[in-house]
Amino acid sequence: MEREEATEVIADARLRLGKTWAELAGVAGRSPVWTTSALLGQQAMPTDVAERVGAALDLDDEVVRALERSPSKGALGDVIPTDPLLYRLYEIVQVYGTTLKELIHEEFGDGIMSAIDFEMDMERLPDPKGDRVKLTLHGKFLPYRVW
Amino acid sequence: MEREEATEVIADARLRLGKTWAELAGVAGRSPVWTTSALLGQQAMPTDVAERVGAALDLDDEVVRALERSPSKGALGDVIPTDPLLYRLYEIVQVYGTTLKELIHEEFGDGIMSAIDFEMDMERLPDPKGDRVKLTLHGKFLPYRVW
Amino acid sequence: MEREEATEVIADARLRLGKTWAELAGVAGRSPVWTTSALLGQQAMPTDVAERVGAALDLDDEVVRALERSPSKGALGDVIPTDPLLYRLYEIVQVYGTTLKELIHEEFGDGIMSAIDFEMDMERLPDPKGDRVKLTLHGKFLPYRVW
Amino acid sequence: MEREEATEVIADARLRLGKTWAELAGVAGRSPVWTTSALLGQQAMPTDVAERVGAALDLDDEVVRALERSPSKGALGDVIPTDPLLYRLYEIVQVYGTTLKELIHEEFGDGIMSAIDFEMDMERLPDPKGDRVKLTLHGKFLPYRVW
Amino acid sequence: MEREEATEVIADARLRLGKTWAELAGVAGRSPVWTTSALLGQQAMPTDVAERVGAALDLDDEVVRALERSPSKGALGDVIPTDPLLYRLYEIVQVYGTTLKELIHEEFGDGIMSAIDFEMDMERLPDPKGDRVKLTLHGKFLPYRVW
Amino acid sequence: MEREEATEVIADARLRLGKTWAELAGVAGRSPVWTTSALLGQQAMPTDVAERVGAALDLDDEVVRALERSPSKGALGDVIPTDPLLYRLYEIVQVYGTTLKELIHEEFGDGIMSAIDFEMDMERLPDPKGDRVKLTLHGKFLPYRVW
Amino acid sequence: MEREEATEVIADARLRLGKTWAELAGVAGRSPVWTTSALLGQQAMPTDVAERVGAALDLDDEVVRALERSPSKGALGDVIPTDPLLYRLYEIVQVYGTTLKELIHEEFGDGIMSAIDFEMDMERLPDPKGDRVKLTLHGKFLPYRVW
Amino acid sequence: MEREEATEVIADARLRLGKTWAELAGVAGRSPVWTTSALLGQQAMPTDVAERVGAALDLDDEVVRALERSPSKGALGDVIPTDPLLYRLYEIVQVYGTTLKELIHEEFGDGIMSAIDFEMDMERLPDPKGDRVKLTLHGKFLPYRVW
Amino acid sequence: MEREEATEVIADARLRLGKTWAELAGVAGRSPVWTTSALLGQQAMPTDVAERVGAALDLDDEVVRALERSPSKGALGDVIPTDPLLYRLYEIVQVYGTTLKELIHEEFGDGIMSAIDFEMDMERLPDPKGDRVKLTLHGKFLPYRVW
Amino acid sequence: MEREEATEVIADARLRLGKTWAELAGVAGRSPVWTTSALLGQQAMPTDVAERVGAALDLDDEVVRALERSPSKGALGDVIPTDPLLYRLYEIVQVYGTTLKELIHEEFGDGIMSAIDFEMDMERLPDPKGDRVKLTLHGKFLPYRVW
Repeated sequence: MEREEATEVIADARLRLGKTWAELAGVAGRSPVWTTSALLGQQAMPTDVAERVGAALDLDDEVVRALERSPSKGALGDVIPTDPLLYRLYEIVQVYGTTLKELIHEEFGDGIMSAIDFEMDMERLPDPKGDRVKLTLHGKFLPYRVW
Repeated sequence: MEREEATEVIADARLRLGKTWAELAGVAGRSPVWTTSALLGQQAMPTDVAERVGAALDLDDEVVRALERSPSKGALGDVIPTDPLLYRLYEIVQVYGTTLKELIHEEFGDGIMSAIDFEMDMERLPDPKGDRVKLTLHGKFLPYRVW
Repeated sequence: MEREEATEVIADARLRLGKTWAELAGVAGRSPVWTTSALLGQQAMPTDVAERVGAALDLDDEVVRALERSPSKGALGDVIPTDPLLYRLYEIVQVYGTTLKELIHEEFGDGIMSAIDFEMDMERLPDPKGDRVKLTLHGKFLPYRVW
Repeated sequence: MEREEATEVIADARLRLGKTWAELAGVAGRSPVWTTSALLGQQAMPTDVAERVGAALDLDDEVVRALERSPSKGALGDVIPTDPLLYRLYEIVQVYGTTLKELIHEEFGDGIMSAIDFEMDMERLPDPKGDRVKLTLHGKFLPYRVW
Repeated sequence: MEREEATEVIADARLRLGKTWAELAGVAGRSPVWTTSALLGQQAMPTDVAERVGAALDLDDEVVRALERSPSKGALGDVIPTDPLLYRLYEIVQVYGTTLKELIHEEFGDGIMSAIDFEMDMERLPDPKGDRVKLTLHGKFLPYRVW
Repeated sequence: MEREEATEVIADARLRLGKTWAELAGVAGRSPVWTTSALLGQQAMPTDVAERVGAALDLDDEVVRALERSPSKGALGDVIPTDPLLYRLYEIVQVYGTTLKELIHEEFGDGIMSAIDFEMDMERLPDPKGDRVKLTLHGKFLPYRVW
Repeated sequence: MEREEATEVIADARLRLGKTWAELAGVAGRSPVWTTSALLGQQAMPTDVAERVGAALDLDDEVVRALERSPSKGALGDVIPTDPLLYRLYEIVQVYGTTLKELIHEEFGDGIMSAIDFEMDMERLPDPKGDRVKLTLHGKFLPYRVW
Repeated sequence: MEREEATEVIADARLRLGKTWAELAGVAGRSPVWTTSALLGQQAMPTDVAERVGAALDLDDEVVRALERSPSKGALGDVIPTDPLLYRLYEIVQVYGTTLKELIHEEFGDGIMSAIDFEMDMERLPDPKGDRVKLTLHGKFLPYRVW
Repeated sequence: MEREEATEVIADARLRLGKTWAELAGVAGRSPVWTTSALLGQQAMPTDVAERVGAALDLDDEVVRALERSPSKGALGDVIPTDPLLYRLYEIVQVYGTTLKELIHEEFGDGIMSAIDFEMDMERLPDPKGDRVKLTLHGKFLPYRVW
Repeated sequence: MEREEATEVIADARLRLGKTWAELAGVAGRSPVWTTSALLGQQAMPTDVAERVGAALDLDDEVVRALERSPSKGALGDVIPTDPLLYRLYEIVQVYGTTLKELIHEEFGDGIMSAIDFEMDMERLPDPKGDRVKLTLHGKFLPYRVW
């Protein structure tokens, strides 16, 4: 079974069983962001994690095996997403991307923030004027190699 | 003077005078991310901030006035950036965007994280295996209006 | 059941039962624009609304549940729509977009008109030279946050 | 003088003389939306209007003549605008476009809302939770000809 | 039944029954261009026309009803057509488009030729050096509204 | 002098001398459509025509020579034009293109209408409900060669 | 049966029966390039040719009829082909296209080489350093009409 | 001097001195196609050829040196050319590309026709029905390496 | 059976039988890169290789025959891949492509590195700071032909 | 001075002084690939390297300072390069990219080859059938972080 097909089977099972992403992250023993991205087909799952999730979602062995394979990543469908929530993330890159480039180079020198050795968290920030979505990201700084 | 032209004048002045973005943020009395994005042509500056920055960078009055106007925002040049540091930010949207959509909807219901009533910070996270770039973002959750 | 599939089931049911969008808006107790956009897969419906509409269209429970979930929004299919009615809306953005940008900034300062905390209405404007389509939109002005 | 060049001359004159768009609309004796769009190069100005505006902005005769010619319209630069204010207008077409298509056809039959025999207004809608931007548009309904 | 599906049913029926487009236009009591474009999914048919065509092509009632609805128009598939006959039409717009813009503005002032209140005819023009395809188009001139 | 440069020189001269396209076509002794397209850089002019037009517009010999050379044709700038008048021409190809393909094949067999051995005319069609723009095109039918 | 479907049926039949393109060209009594392009859905076949090929490939009458209709031409799928053999053809247009434009205009004046009244041949050119692929093309020169 | 600049200098010199491409090919002692493509910036010229051409066109030494360097090749400007003569070449790839792929593989096996070890010629083919443009191309067949 | 279908059958068989690419390369008697690319539909397999692989994967004769045919090559799906591993390869072309062009021309003169008469190897390079992926490529230098 | 401008100054200086890339790499004390990519605007140079290169190319201090800053990387200009040498590199990604993805995952698990902690070399591989271009690349394997 190809990974794309497994992703659809999982989506159906999750809805049918009424599991939240947070519950599945609890079962996986991993963070909600990582677990959700893995179940949306963006990460390869370690065997034990895949099996715990598979049991919770009542998945066939074939689907569990597919979860362990490296998927073809990238889920926007379009180069620029049309969904407003997704577009705002793209807009942040448009408006603040060159700023981050300047500040990271000023602090660290030439290199990048890794998107592989990378971690992300989402939480609710209570605010009397309206609660806020807080995202925290950190990735290893990788300096350019000179040879 | 159009805003784009002002942005170039500022870039030249900053390099000539050897000011860091952090120093300019100190002069502005605002955060480094906001100040840098404003000087890169992505924000309108309040008059007093524009004047303090203008003095520090030895800018003509015409340039200072341009800093106060609302710019045409979006700085990537291309739809998908080719610069590796910028591309990694785009890749994070590709790989983790749908995950954030699921988790934000699960926590808040239908709506978005605002990219306007929005704040971002960059800092160095010391790590024995190699220091990390940490980004913190928060934007107001805006629920879809039903009418 | 994924939301896209639900949208198709609803389209078929509406045609088969001969319901107008206006009638469905009456059943929903919401405006025609909001109700139609929700049934075309662009809004999450509150449970009670979804159930009233579900009863009127004779929908399975699975479809009603799908109506309550946040859809992946954006319905043009192409970046630039080819349908003449839709294209005229795009053309208005091409021809009057920068004008609105100037006038909104002149009136409100730097910021945007929200497309989330947003409302829209369509009505017929009788005119002896030929009736006119009138659209009224209003969205909350969101000023850029300075930090 | 080509129209594009005239548009730049006007932008410079307006900034130098510190005129608001509203003031220029007053001089023109036309609405702010129409006047601004004409000065941004999206409309041909009647001779008397062009001359009044030319006097107010101290323009050469050559520029005034250019204002009377039909420009090549369309001002976004990119197919999808990156500026957040402009993008929200595009997003409204993405999210509500097919809804308007359904409702206009239901009310008027097959045809379109004209973007030529068309009028638009922008005003501030006071609101205790935050003032709102209100846009009103109306265009002649044009039924498809059958022959 | 969605309109796209109806278009395919009609194409199959026409081929199976061996009807020419000209014969179907005769049945419809409309011009060949309009009738063909309607049967290719680009026009909404008045009820009586749809029923006469439905009888001639032996169509189910559901298909006849679909013919009466407003379709999502635009049939090229790609932005630039690859089929040589279709491409020549696009090339005419590339080579003569700006010419028509100049001449229409010179004759009529600022405005457009409507593509909605519009009619088109195709005929054979006998010519000893090789017969020619003659296309005649006319659309209402719509002047830009000034307000 | 490259042809693109010559086109700009001609545009300036025409505006400065206040010549209409119709007058220039009279001088050229050719139709307005052909003459205008040649002066907009889409045709090579025969020597005698180029010289008559050159005299009327007071052009240098170098510009006259450039008018005689084959230009790189295609004047839209963008794949899809944003100017409303030009876009309507593109929309006609989108909505009626496949119809013309069917009707031309039905009448002539497999082949195309030439856009090279081609002629076009624009005239005003008086109409009590509003005058109409009439376009007449004819191109040689070219059957596909079979070998 | 639509032409696209017929093309697939033919491809399957050719592989199942083990016929080469050269053999099918012999059956058709036409050149290999023309016959192959027709069987790949890029030409309309005369009735007698379609019937001979139909017999050789054991095709249903419905498929034979489809071969006689004018197909929607253009087979690359993408604007720029990714297949290396196909890309080299595109690259020749990129590298030598403007050269051919100059030389054809120098020899023939303003006009084009027809791609409709056109013939092409492919043969093996023996060469001790490695055999070569030889392509010969000729198309009627079509001068631009002046009117 | 960069190669692009040299190409412009050469184009101006050729027009000013009234040299044909054929004459320059004679001076170069190479074929017209190769010589023209080199002068249009698509080939590196051997020193002796560059010097003969430089003398004939009265070029500075700096320009002659630029002719000897490897240019960045590809001259269409756009992915799909809009010029009708150039487009016909692209159309031939669209319509006959997959045919050539089949026939070359049938004759030679898996591999490509080289566009580097490649030669092309253009000549006039007299024909009573209208002279024809004849193009002859041959490129080394390169089989895929298996390792 | 078309090659694309064969590729899917092979992918399923490989997963079901639990064969690694390295094992299949051993069966094929060819390198892992070549064998994998052939099984992913990017190479034509010699008959004996196809049969050995077919036996190992328990493939039908029809699939084995498909493996021997020349496929339509190019597997990225998108012009720019979204998968991070694939994107890094594209990024290397963006960042180091013009460098390789300069160095190859400096060493070899005008020409290219063949991607057809080409070989590639992937191996693990042990490194105490973290093992490295090592890629070795070599392709025949092909000088441009001068004629 | 912006980095892009510095790159042009360096290109001119190199040609004027007749330095090879290999000589400049010797002066820099770095590999030819890294040195060339830095001088083409794709790397930030350490101060001492920039100064040695600056002396060899007789560069102003302002240019030397620019060489030390992090450039905006990515040099293809177009998404898909048209230059044949550059395109072959892109083609290798198209044809062998998915193969490398499979083999790297099989050998290392889920992760990527870094294009930052990365090194590349180009050398001539003598071969009696024609010398070959050999490229060697190695990048650190970065496993996806699980959290």
